[in-house]
Amino acid sequence: MAQDKKKEKVRRMMLSVLRQLRNVRKGGYAAMRHPKIKESATVLFATESVATLKPEPTAVRYKVARGPYATVTDSHLRFFEDLLGKDRLITDPDECESYNVDWVKMVRGCSRLVVKPKTTEEVSEILRYCNVNRLAVCPQGGNTGLVGGSVPVFDEIVLSTSLMNNIIEVDNISSTLVCQAGCVLETLENHLAQSGMMMPLDLGAKGSCQIGGCVSTNAGGLRLLRYGNLHGNLLGLEAVKANGEIVNCLNTLKKDNTGYHLKHLFIGSEGTLGIVTKIAIQCPTLPKAVSVALLGVDSFEDLLKTYQLAQAELAEVLSSCEMIDRASMSVCTDNLGLKNPLVINNDGYEFYMLIETAGSETRHDEEKLNQFLEKAMEREIVKNGTIATEPTKIKISSFQNIWQLRERITEGVMRDGYVFKYDISVPLPNFYETVHALREHLKDPRIKRIAGYGHIGDGNIHVQVSIPEYIDEIAHQVEPFIFEYVSKLKGSVSAEHGIGFKKTQFLHLSKDESAIKLMHELKQLMDPNRILNPYKVLPSL
Amino acid sequence: MAQDKKKEKVRRMMLSVLRQLRNVRKGGYAAMRHPKIKESATVLFATESVATLKPEPTAVRYKVARGPYATVTDSHLRFFEDLLGKDRLITDPDECESYNVDWVKMVRGCSRLVVKPKTTEEVSEILRYCNVNRLAVCPQGGNTGLVGGSVPVFDEIVLSTSLMNNIIEVDNISSTLVCQAGCVLETLENHLAQSGMMMPLDLGAKGSCQIGGCVSTNAGGLRLLRYGNLHGNLLGLEAVKANGEIVNCLNTLKKDNTGYHLKHLFIGSEGTLGIVTKIAIQCPTLPKAVSVALLGVDSFEDLLKTYQLAQAELAEVLSSCEMIDRASMSVCTDNLGLKNPLVINNDGYEFYMLIETAGSETRHDEEKLNQFLEKAMEREIVKNGTIATEPTKIKISSFQNIWQLRERITEGVMRDGYVFKYDISVPLPNFYETVHALREHLKDPRIKRIAGYGHIGDGNIHVQVSIPEYIDEIAHQVEPFIFEYVSKLKGSVSAEHGIGFKKTQFLHLSKDESAIKLMHELKQLMDPNRILNPYKVLPSL
Repeated sequence: MAQDKKKEKVRRMMLSVLRQLRNVRKGGYAAMRHPKIKESATVLFATESVATLKPEPTAVRYKVARGPYATVTDSHLRFFEDLLGKDRLITDPDECESYNVDWVKMVRGCSRLVVKPKTTEEVSEILRYCNVNRLAVCPQGGNTGLVGGSVPVFDEIVLSTSLMNNIIEVDNISSTLVCQAGCVLETLENHLAQSGMMMPLDLGAKGSCQIGGCVSTNAGGLRLLRYGNLHGNLLGLEAVKANGEIVNCLNTLKKDNTGYHLKHLFIGSEGTLGIVTKIAIQCPTLPKAVSVALLGVDSFEDLLKTYQLAQAELAEVLSSCEMIDRASMSVCTDNLGLKNPLVINNDGYEFYMLIETAGSETRHDEEKLNQFLEKAMEREIVKNGTIATEPTKIKISSFQNIWQLRERITEGVMRDGYVFKYDISVPLPNFYETVHALREHLKDPRIKRIAGYGHIGDGNIHVQVSIPEYIDEIAHQVEPFIFEYVSKLKGSVSAEHGIGFKKTQFLHLSKDESAIKLMHELKQLMDPNRILNPYKVLPSL
Repeated sequence: MAQDKKKEKVRRMMLSVLRQLRNVRKGGYAAMRHPKIKESATVLFATESVATLKPEPTAVRYKVARGPYATVTDSHLRFFEDLLGKDRLITDPDECESYNVDWVKMVRGCSRLVVKPKTTEEVSEILRYCNVNRLAVCPQGGNTGLVGGSVPVFDEIVLSTSLMNNIIEVDNISSTLVCQAGCVLETLENHLAQSGMMMPLDLGAKGSCQIGGCVSTNAGGLRLLRYGNLHGNLLGLEAVKANGEIVNCLNTLKKDNTGYHLKHLFIGSEGTLGIVTKIAIQCPTLPKAVSVALLGVDSFEDLLKTYQLAQAELAEVLSSCEMIDRASMSVCTDNLGLKNPLVINNDGYEFYMLIETAGSETRHDEEKLNQFLEKAMEREIVKNGTIATEPTKIKISSFQNIWQLRERITEGVMRDGYVFKYDISVPLPNFYETVHALREHLKDPRIKRIAGYGHIGDGNIHVQVSIPEYIDEIAHQVEPFIFEYVSKLKGSVSAEHGIGFKKTQFLHLSKDESAIKLMHELKQLMDPNRILNPYKVLPSL
């Protein structure tokens, strides 16, 4: 009760600060901060490494049968050695390990061969040979996927694109980038910034993920709300089919209605229809100013109202709208030692909203942001907040600190032990319902945390259930319950992470029978020997 | 010389008006107008109907051979009558005429049967029957296409979607619309405006074109620059395959990475892989204020610089950036009697740029627009201009008048007689080169006009060559010259209009052999009897 009064006092103080700001309009930096928080939030980078549990082999844990593929022989090895040289093959079991295990340590293959082509022609040669010899291939980019799609299930040859990392062309008149599939997202972002442009997508994993992987998995991320998805932004691509044929749709035109739009076959099909080797993408103008606000909200209903208000008031400058619940915030504070700037007397809020604006005129954006916040606080839907602005390209720490509270949740929760991770889309009014349903359904005391966070602007929530270590029994409590629940809400069982290895059996909960049939037909057409990324995406026939 | 001095005087006067405006900042309507133009431009709607030439039958003019399809018999007619009733069949040759001829009177089929289903199930029944009986089908929406894709070539049964016009759901929390394929674009726009939303695409043909046709042809239009293309905006669709199977991918989620992204097979494949029956689309927030500026520019180089400046200064509020050359402007003034507000002493400019901004805060948008114009005039890249603002939903006449100068070019040029129309994409620096090349190449005195206009923001120019009536000899002077020229520039021979019937033989100039092969494979998979929109899109094998 005393806590409630204190929070109400904070809301009123913030409102008065905002009103003063409106009167005393000035260009530059708009400092709105709860008066009790004197200094910028300090980030305490935790130094322990993440849990180093070695997962059981996928084939054992998930009881899968190996497909009718050949096993790599010395004669095969000689072919690859002749093609690529010894330097670009990995055969040492220890060295192979990092290509066999996904970064969330959920699945583990047992490949004994990693090949590292540098050119499209080499990819073509490799696939042509594998297709003739019935050798299964697992394409791998940055290996940052979350559904076990980027590592082998058995002994598939890993085709790593990490050496295909040339930036081919940056055109700042047409605002386009052409590059090889293995370029790391952050590298591209930094490169484009020099020409006043940016990548139209941004992910927490940007420091490792490769653009070819992003395209193959139709990665969404933090700014989809503003810049749209890859189906809209990718101008062209080049891909290699299972039989080694190179499909060249690499064009940089924004409009090209000449025949079927083939590139979409490769966007989001997770390497099962072909391997993406080059991409051309349109790049938005780098905004001149970016602001970010972290808001404290008491209920999901208020969060939804705040989102709608942000849409109306911030409209064209809104570049991100993210939700963090109390349990996800505590991942950052308790597991990573980050500081939550909205804590008052050791108490936070039920929900947090992170809002980012990006625009061409700092003063206009700030006015819009302040006007939005003033309305939100007047209506009592937002209770507390802090704003940071990034007026130049040099990121200032309070800006970064706020974003860390959202971006490092995936990493932080792994310190709980083992995490069941779900990436679902549901109609907006039902956005948080799945978390409530799980809390109701799962009463096992071994469960440490049931939390939700994500992209409210896109109707995409990430739900995490953490336990100290993997327990089969709990896995069965969570699945298929959660997928069936999402299906009832007419949601998607994979909003942005894809189907990969982990979700093939749940595909039917989001895809119509007619669609699954057509998927099988396409697979048969494009890869009749099924050598590309087997055991993934498609449910068994 | 005297003219040049006058123009320089105008530029200076405009600049001083702009500077005054910056000092006397006030909310609301920003009236910048050349002082000599006292009243708003008056639109004189020409009352004559467009040329009513009846084109030769397509089979005769283009020397095509009919495919191995059945001819409609009385027994077939009885089936359709039983399914739809007499009211929803058209068999009268005169009534069939408007379904046989495209609106630019370029092609003419000789279908004797038009069927008008109301539901997906009826479409499914029709196609299943046609597939079994080898009856060819031409799907038709608003019949506003420009490449002969929407009318039959021979006696294909026309399947008109015009009675499939139900709006199924408008959700203003998730900002989505679900409707049947036959809804007219303008009807949807008006309907959404009531909920504060808009369609993410806008075409000159919006009063007639149907959303199913827009999707099937991947229509681009006037605001693609801002809101992106249909591959990015379409959330889901339902389509019927040639064999009658209904493929249901109708979901309203912004993110759904469950399996292959099948909807893209139907976007832009012009009804050759299936007939779109329902769509779900995301709808942007209706802007609170829209402004439009018409600018006079002396050269293409200045136009390009103006575009780049607009991108930097207007960034997130820029919603359209269109180019009109002198010859296209005269279509509006001479053929349609519209008034060009930038004429001084009977002289206009070499190029005009139409810029539209749309945003959530009128004052901010106006400041941005004025700042942009001030810079453009200081740099002497823009010589004259006029601005109109649409502060409410009621369109004011000067706003509409400016847009008409762009939107009515297609209609106006038809009064020249016969028009060869080209819709090409080229890299921005080469945007206007094709027009120059045509003027150089075509010296026939019978040619009335060689003109270019289009979406500079998208690198998409519409080139028109007009003559009093169709002459085969001139057709051969223009084609394949223009397509080969575009191909040399690494452009697209169809930016947004599609391939349809008219461009199949030029597809190879924009599409790689590997891509055309894959197109044929997809056609074989989806429509093995080739009953759907034959003679279109795919080149003969």
